[in-house]
Amino acid sequence: SSRDPYYEPYERYGVEDPRITPIDGAYYITYTAYGPYGVRTGIGRTKDFKQFERISFATDVDSKDGVLFPKKIAGSYVMIIRPGGMAGRRGDIWISYSPDMIHWGKSRLLLTSEDIRWSTEKLGAATPPLLTEYGWLFFYHGVRTTPSGRIYRVGAALLELEHPHVVIGRTPHFILAPEENYERIGDVPNVVFPCGAVVEKNGTIRMYYGVADTAIALATTHIDDIIKLCI
Amino acid sequence: SSRDPYYEPYERYGVEDPRITPIDGAYYITYTAYGPYGVRTGIGRTKDFKQFERISFATDVDSKDGVLFPKKIAGSYVMIIRPGGMAGRRGDIWISYSPDMIHWGKSRLLLTSEDIRWSTEKLGAATPPLLTEYGWLFFYHGVRTTPSGRIYRVGAALLELEHPHVVIGRTPHFILAPEENYERIGDVPNVVFPCGAVVEKNGTIRMYYGVADTAIALATTHIDDIIKLCI
Amino acid sequence: SSRDPYYEPYERYGVEDPRITPIDGAYYITYTAYGPYGVRTGIGRTKDFKQFERISFATDVDSKDGVLFPKKIAGSYVMIIRPGGMAGRRGDIWISYSPDMIHWGKSRLLLTSEDIRWSTEKLGAATPPLLTEYGWLFFYHGVRTTPSGRIYRVGAALLELEHPHVVIGRTPHFILAPEENYERIGDVPNVVFPCGAVVEKNGTIRMYYGVADTAIALATTHIDDIIKLCI
Amino acid sequence: SSRDPYYEPYERYGVEDPRITPIDGAYYITYTAYGPYGVRTGIGRTKDFKQFERISFATDVDSKDGVLFPKKIAGSYVMIIRPGGMAGRRGDIWISYSPDMIHWGKSRLLLTSEDIRWSTEKLGAATPPLLTEYGWLFFYHGVRTTPSGRIYRVGAALLELEHPHVVIGRTPHFILAPEENYERIGDVPNVVFPCGAVVEKNGTIRMYYGVADTAIALATTHIDDIIKLCI
Amino acid sequence: SSRDPYYEPYERYGVEDPRITPIDGAYYITYTAYGPYGVRTGIGRTKDFKQFERISFATDVDSKDGVLFPKKIAGSYVMIIRPGGMAGRRGDIWISYSPDMIHWGKSRLLLTSEDIRWSTEKLGAATPPLLTEYGWLFFYHGVRTTPSGRIYRVGAALLELEHPHVVIGRTPHFILAPEENYERIGDVPNVVFPCGAVVEKNGTIRMYYGVADTAIALATTHIDDIIKLCI
Amino acid sequence: SSRDPYYEPYERYGVEDPRITPIDGAYYITYTAYGPYGVRTGIGRTKDFKQFERISFATDVDSKDGVLFPKKIAGSYVMIIRPGGMAGRRGDIWISYSPDMIHWGKSRLLLTSEDIRWSTEKLGAATPPLLTEYGWLFFYHGVRTTPSGRIYRVGAALLELEHPHVVIGRTPHFILAPEENYERIGDVPNVVFPCGAVVEKNGTIRMYYGVADTAIALATTHIDDIIKLCI
Repeated sequence: SSRDPYYEPYERYGVEDPRITPIDGAYYITYTAYGPYGVRTGIGRTKDFKQFERISFATDVDSKDGVLFPKKIAGSYVMIIRPGGMAGRRGDIWISYSPDMIHWGKSRLLLTSEDIRWSTEKLGAATPPLLTEYGWLFFYHGVRTTPSGRIYRVGAALLELEHPHVVIGRTPHFILAPEENYERIGDVPNVVFPCGAVVEKNGTIRMYYGVADTAIALATTHIDDIIKLCI
Repeated sequence: SSRDPYYEPYERYGVEDPRITPIDGAYYITYTAYGPYGVRTGIGRTKDFKQFERISFATDVDSKDGVLFPKKIAGSYVMIIRPGGMAGRRGDIWISYSPDMIHWGKSRLLLTSEDIRWSTEKLGAATPPLLTEYGWLFFYHGVRTTPSGRIYRVGAALLELEHPHVVIGRTPHFILAPEENYERIGDVPNVVFPCGAVVEKNGTIRMYYGVADTAIALATTHIDDIIKLCI
Repeated sequence: SSRDPYYEPYERYGVEDPRITPIDGAYYITYTAYGPYGVRTGIGRTKDFKQFERISFATDVDSKDGVLFPKKIAGSYVMIIRPGGMAGRRGDIWISYSPDMIHWGKSRLLLTSEDIRWSTEKLGAATPPLLTEYGWLFFYHGVRTTPSGRIYRVGAALLELEHPHVVIGRTPHFILAPEENYERIGDVPNVVFPCGAVVEKNGTIRMYYGVADTAIALATTHIDDIIKLCI
Repeated sequence: SSRDPYYEPYERYGVEDPRITPIDGAYYITYTAYGPYGVRTGIGRTKDFKQFERISFATDVDSKDGVLFPKKIAGSYVMIIRPGGMAGRRGDIWISYSPDMIHWGKSRLLLTSEDIRWSTEKLGAATPPLLTEYGWLFFYHGVRTTPSGRIYRVGAALLELEHPHVVIGRTPHFILAPEENYERIGDVPNVVFPCGAVVEKNGTIRMYYGVADTAIALATTHIDDIIKLCI
Repeated sequence: SSRDPYYEPYERYGVEDPRITPIDGAYYITYTAYGPYGVRTGIGRTKDFKQFERISFATDVDSKDGVLFPKKIAGSYVMIIRPGGMAGRRGDIWISYSPDMIHWGKSRLLLTSEDIRWSTEKLGAATPPLLTEYGWLFFYHGVRTTPSGRIYRVGAALLELEHPHVVIGRTPHFILAPEENYERIGDVPNVVFPCGAVVEKNGTIRMYYGVADTAIALATTHIDDIIKLCI
Repeated sequence: SSRDPYYEPYERYGVEDPRITPIDGAYYITYTAYGPYGVRTGIGRTKDFKQFERISFATDVDSKDGVLFPKKIAGSYVMIIRPGGMAGRRGDIWISYSPDMIHWGKSRLLLTSEDIRWSTEKLGAATPPLLTEYGWLFFYHGVRTTPSGRIYRVGAALLELEHPHVVIGRTPHFILAPEENYERIGDVPNVVFPCGAVVEKNGTIRMYYGVADTAIALATTHIDDIIKLCI
């Protein structure tokens, strides 16, 4: 948490779930700030992972799971956000725009649980969108409430390059779900929660994801396989 | 609700609680848009109350009770908002800034139920801030949940002219509460809900407020009396 | 409640909300039986309102607001029921069929809150359907939950004579709502709850309805006016 | 609230619902202390209603509606308490004993909502028990939750003189319920909440009771009438 | 789900938990139909598990876990149902009768959580009743809610052959509970949920049961051992 | 449960979580009594673990996790209790005093979740306080609610010898948490729940604790290590 009097109240209980997006030679980190007045999404920047500076809070409270697109689109920075979804309410994925990374607007709905059978409750961004020739490849998590707690799983969607609020397609089912004991057993059972994905030259995606709120795991897939599922 | 495909989904169930702020010769109307994905605050503009145009949504969902300040402060449009507070959660009053009325940022907490004994649950703006020589005079409602439902009452705060996120003082108690039968009996009993206040030349404030979600009432006070209570 | 060992457990806490339908010279009374295992709909019969006999329970538990059609349709007794709707869940209006008033089946959805904007929570039959040349005229109540409790209001629908599961039309808005002090003030404020309607020769409908769970009131309208609203 | 560091945390938000019992020439006041850790029952004493001293907290938290018997029974001070009943849980009436008004024990159940059809949720003492030749006459309130909030009503029970944990009888129904507009309309509608009863020489009981959390009302009855209902 | 316009709305989200009962040379399958208006119990029939036909919905909504008896009793088809039990409410096991498998009635309570200490919340049929010389042997599940979710376990009851609503006896404790890792770990931890039991000639019962909503397991016991526990 | 008519109603569903404290040559057992009117803390005594006698109930209902100090302090028996904390409400740890183990009073707050970041919901005593030269060493459990249920963990505090309501220090973090499979998997996953601790001559603490409501485990530590963490 920050000592800056503007930032401190909203980060008093800590910061969590950082996602990193490189833009124009710097690394931007979106994170969930957690304090007594709720959760909101902050943006920080670093060039060397030694010196960090805060840019802004990109949302008001009761909003988390923000991820930045790795480049400006039509002159705007673009972010995926998840307003709402607190206290058991439904939470949908939205997209928002900014000229300066400080002021945000023109937000609109991107994905809703209404359309995704395997997620009965809320959705949220997993990893920052990946640029592909077919569109932005975007991983997200979905939550289903069972009689014994929630289960977090992961799906993917493909968004139009120039109009990222348009969904080209989605994987018909989730593509990553708790199966291994280290995903099913831990402080919060049955959670897979990706925050970062790296594409290697050969098209392999290396996805890093939290498991059961207890450890971090690595899964791999090939980008072509996921895109095929989306189209 | 709107036929514009950008606005329509968020206004599908209607718009409500309009508040009018004159800025630079036009009338800006902030309103709560209500649709299947939640509630959010829209801004419209008119010059003659015959022709209307929409400017933007100033917030994401789960945010309502937005009111604009009647002039720019330090180069920014300024708005009071109430993010959160849905589904029985606590809702606080925040302040937000914009260069263009479209993109908003730098939001921060302004008033919280923690500090206001007579409101146990959530707060929200009542009327757009009034410019006085002592500061911005701002009316807000507070909600207390009783064993038989909620009671809505009204308090006032004075905000610094150049730094409106600084609260100079608040009325120690609520200053308007349901007392008359027409405020206590109706579709939603025990609600007084102001959305507009006019100051006359002699300093009389005429406050228009919804009662019991059933009718509109008028109360008057003198601006000096309220300011004295705030200081 | 009954001393018959079959009926007693389900009526132990009492019976309520009787609705009377004359069929073939006898009066059939549908009622909500209330006991430790839930509520269900019973059917009784009388010819003189002195001697009563029980016919059956027409539903399992968690079902109430049953009303009988005044004649057989296509060889079956027909009933409107409201399964579900307990514990704050949504409750829809259904229709069910029986060869003997004892065994019921082929039930299907008739009206759902999804389609009725003024009822956000649950619906239920008001009065037994009235035979008109245009179809069965059927009054029902709808419930909206406000911050200060629920409000019960009444609408009407017209059902096809030979296929009563087909809705010809509905009144676009509710047609009876709490307005008078005796409807708004009482043990359960803001409730109008009709259980009986009588059509006079001149077409006047005399509707008897519970108010605020405290008294019984009478409203009148003309059958043609309601039918026009439905078509 | 108190400045005594032992009492202050538990009375920080105030004290409410005082009941007065004269014992041995002094007036003992039981009250509900309300603070950030919950509610509990305090005992104070005065001889002249000018000087007050605190005696003790007679219960831990989540306990309210304590009333003292006006004399020791079998060498013990005796109190009626209502442990539990918070957050919508059922609350029953208990009886507790003390050698010194400071340490309390041997508590046991006295009255439970299980046995009282008109109170579905929780019970609590109304007024301190009155000594009669037939036993201790004890008024209590019961709460029923309706679709539009709670309704508070009052019943009476007769307790054995020497063994006050034994209930001789209860009034079969409530004997005071909201009926007048000033009982039905107010900050908390449909509440009658007695805290004090005075018996006059001719047997008239003057009962003082809060109405709708807004005012105080007075009702009268004759002690013989209530006792007859209990036996 | 079905394309038949009568069945489709109630099966829109799928069908689950099939139980198979052979009657008179055909296989009857009871299943839980799941759609936007709730869950209800459907009956289908097949002779070869290649061609299926739907018979009826045997219950209204908010009812699941239906199983048929393998022969008519006193001229009626007999079914065990579980009306209610949705949204965390208590759910009991009932029995219902039909002349034609289409219309059902005369339903009554069979087993309630009130009597079964190890099930605090709801019960439901496990497998179709098995005919024995001592009575109908009937397995059922019970649910207990713990601080970390629900645990599903299995008990057995013996019902009178000619009057199956009469319970001869029950196993004093549950007889199958999650113990193995594959029963405790999975999408819904701590669930054993039998839907089928086969009795072999030597009296071995082979019980097939879902585990943790993730796999299907097989347990065996001897019919005499279970009957002894019931008597 | 007891056959004594005073004790029976409160122990009807059983007794659980016994903690043993030796005082003056006898063993005192505090336990949670569980019956239809709630849970409360009982005290029993034995000298040989063959003959037991009940002493008292030390609390009213909705109170559990009581542990006795092993000797009188300033002339009083002293007990740690946890009033409240039922139905998902916050529960704090309190301390209470008695001259005779029957009547209790002067209770006050000892530890609250407000101060303990790793416990968001409720606290409760783990083991009876251990006498050390630095103060009373006291283990307690804390509960955090996650999206998949609760997790129980253990911390320690050091209390002043002569004024045990004064906390000298606490371990900055929990010191025992579910990690092993037998702590994470069972009827109630993710629970470690100590009820007894023995200090050996060399300073080793042997702590016995329930795991996942399914088994009992043993952990060891050294008393100096824990005290260092508290100071």
